[in-house]
Amino acid sequence: MAVYQVLFHVSDNETWPKAVTNIENFLKDVGPSGATIEVVANAAAVMTYYNQEKAELLERMQQLAAIGVKFTACRNALRAHQLDEQAKPDFVEVVPGGITEIVAKQAAGYLYIKP
Amino acid sequence: MAVYQVLFHVSDNETWPKAVTNIENFLKDVGPSGATIEVVANAAAVMTYYNQEKAELLERMQQLAAIGVKFTACRNALRAHQLDEQAKPDFVEVVPGGITEIVAKQAAGYLYIKP
Amino acid sequence: MAVYQVLFHVSDNETWPKAVTNIENFLKDVGPSGATIEVVANAAAVMTYYNQEKAELLERMQQLAAIGVKFTACRNALRAHQLDEQAKPDFVEVVPGGITEIVAKQAAGYLYIKP
Repeated sequence: MAVYQVLFHVSDNETWPKAVTNIENFLKDVGPSGATIEVVANAAAVMTYYNQEKAELLERMQQLAAIGVKFTACRNALRAHQLDEQAKPDFVEVVPGGITEIVAKQAAGYLYIKP
Repeated sequence: MAVYQVLFHVSDNETWPKAVTNIENFLKDVGPSGATIEVVANAAAVMTYYNQEKAELLERMQQLAAIGVKFTACRNALRAHQLDEQAKPDFVEVVPGGITEIVAKQAAGYLYIKP
Repeated sequence: MAVYQVLFHVSDNETWPKAVTNIENFLKDVGPSGATIEVVANAAAVMTYYNQEKAELLERMQQLAAIGVKFTACRNALRAHQLDEQAKPDFVEVVPGGITEIVAKQAAGYLYIKP
């Protein structure tokens, strides 16, 4: 079976619940080994990673990360929102530029989805 | 002439008028036989299919369906919003998973647009 | 080094600051000769091109245009919002249909991003 490569782009905080549900449902359909998934958060969306009031949502992200979903944060966005890179959740990986990451991954064959 | 394969992804109700206008204008440019178009509605966007107050918009969708545009609804989203699959408009086709559908169609060569 | 072809789709006015920042940051990463960039504005997003209160944002767009970023406006959208094509900013190019432009450019190899 083909393994899909899929990139989810999240650029505001309101979209996170939709994005996480999208990924959970998608993985139910194709199975954890049926897709390589990366989430790129840029712009204001990086704030959710640091929002303690979103504990349940962050827990769902962490569970997805535990089965292989890669969650990234754009460094430009972290700086713009004065968020400390050292204080990010462990499951989040910082990338130098969110758009650059999206472009590079699409160029490498990832399919793009904006939830 | 090349026949384009285009997938429109609609994930909230507010975007529907824009999406329908997009498709109408696009088809004026390329002609009904110039493109194979599929609309995937997931998340809250599936509610519009059932909204009697949107009769005019639904009529425009139905006219597009009549000339070959495929409108789909994500079953996960229908369940999440407690919408009865049996009561859907005739022109709408239910797909098991909206994101899975988008991924499969992109992998098959469809171009992705988020209106 | 590969030259990326990237299309940014902007369909509402609120997204413009995010889109412009995205492009500025991306070009810092890949350099002006590292990417061919086109911005397609359709729907309500074309209004920003005419909004004198957004002078600073328009100035940033103009600077990007000066280093090769192509900014376009959908003619259908200009008409729908009763905007005079002759009065558009010099750096903006009108395309007959925004979606048709997006489809054609994606078909020609451009990567799609919705900021």
